[in-house]
Amino acid sequence: MLVKSQVKYIQSLGHKKFRDAAGVFVAEGSKIVQELLSYPPVSLAELYATREWLLENENRFPAAKNKVAVEAHELERISFLSTPGQVLAVFRKPVFSDITKQPGITLLLDEIQDPGNLGTIIRTADWFGVRRIICSPGTADAFNPKVVQATMGSIARVEVLYGDLKEYMAGHPGIPSYAATLDGEDLVHMLRVPEALILIGNESRGIHKSLASLASHRIRIPRKGAAESLNAAVAAGIVLSLIQKD
Amino acid sequence: MLVKSQVKYIQSLGHKKFRDAAGVFVAEGSKIVQELLSYPPVSLAELYATREWLLENENRFPAAKNKVAVEAHELERISFLSTPGQVLAVFRKPVFSDITKQPGITLLLDEIQDPGNLGTIIRTADWFGVRRIICSPGTADAFNPKVVQATMGSIARVEVLYGDLKEYMAGHPGIPSYAATLDGEDLVHMLRVPEALILIGNESRGIHKSLASLASHRIRIPRKGAAESLNAAVAAGIVLSLIQKD
Repeated sequence: MLVKSQVKYIQSLGHKKFRDAAGVFVAEGSKIVQELLSYPPVSLAELYATREWLLENENRFPAAKNKVAVEAHELERISFLSTPGQVLAVFRKPVFSDITKQPGITLLLDEIQDPGNLGTIIRTADWFGVRRIICSPGTADAFNPKVVQATMGSIARVEVLYGDLKEYMAGHPGIPSYAATLDGEDLVHMLRVPEALILIGNESRGIHKSLASLASHRIRIPRKGAAESLNAAVAAGIVLSLIQKD
Repeated sequence: MLVKSQVKYIQSLGHKKFRDAAGVFVAEGSKIVQELLSYPPVSLAELYATREWLLENENRFPAAKNKVAVEAHELERISFLSTPGQVLAVFRKPVFSDITKQPGITLLLDEIQDPGNLGTIIRTADWFGVRRIICSPGTADAFNPKVVQATMGSIARVEVLYGDLKEYMAGHPGIPSYAATLDGEDLVHMLRVPEALILIGNESRGIHKSLASLASHRIRIPRKGAAESLNAAVAAGIVLSLIQKD
């Protein structure tokens, strides 16, 4: 059974400041929770699930003390989804080893504001083996419940950091950087490099001009039709599918 | 001012059966409405906007009889968005000329259920000059307000039809067909063909086996990392970016 203080605590985790203070985030639904339970960088803080779910999944989590059996109607009270699943888990934020600091592709996101877009970008990065994403301060919070759901578990495998993108670029001179724009060079000419920074901009405004001008290359995904722009996650996927070494 | 019957009518357009009966759909927000007003395949049925918006945009629509000045709080009553804009328009569904029947790339969508995903796929198709999408009956309705918003206006330029995908493939023999799967051939080997069918499947289940087996080629986007799958719109964008002739 859920007590009132638990309900209030979980609801508070919808807000960044409470997530940051507690160092945790929420994930919901059997598939994501099962996946996160199997990745060491995140660890389980608390788990709220129906009796059936706990029975079916008891071999997945050793610690018995932090699981609470709840009724479906109780899950509705704490869920951030319009259609709650059978389980809601609170995880401690991932702590990444130094592997994410090795050379590789780093995505730089300039004010991606839509949580679904950010989550899909994290998931796409994970598919292509990108371990590191640097977000401008105006980007959505990666541990927002909507972002976590859209990552489909990839939040445990990609390190997402926040900071000034210009400073990050200045701190990594010599690494080729590619700004995805509407007017650069056709990206089929992009080099397959093992190490690079890729800048993806806000969908309405694109990449801030002063930031794009710092990139060593401007690239563009050739438009054959009439749409004004591409979705930021789709653009990131296309660039990542082409830049990696075969 | 809005009368009660108008409010009820617009709210009814959230449901497919009422959209189908009236042959119309809803678009909201200045950017999309302005774009749709400039594309002949769709025509304006009714427009509800604030006085300021009507004044700023009066040169965009000739017909005076079907516009209604409303207050911001009235827009909130009819809007399908969580943050209503300054304008909501009802458009007649697009009627496409035979240009969409010319040879080209056709996307076949097997049960894409998420409205945002479908809208993003339509927008991505438009970017790459794809004029035709065939959806299985289990796919979301292209004129669902959430889909329309995610298309960013591309709904006026891409013909979206619904029908049995196996029948469609059987009716188009000789055209190469590519099923995007997790176990096909690396898509970098995909031919740049001027005419093809591209199958994209439901994110959880992929393409139905019996449908994928009808495709002349199975392709896969190589995975370098650990994500279990790619978002369907991202996958569609990557395939479209590679299949088209340069």
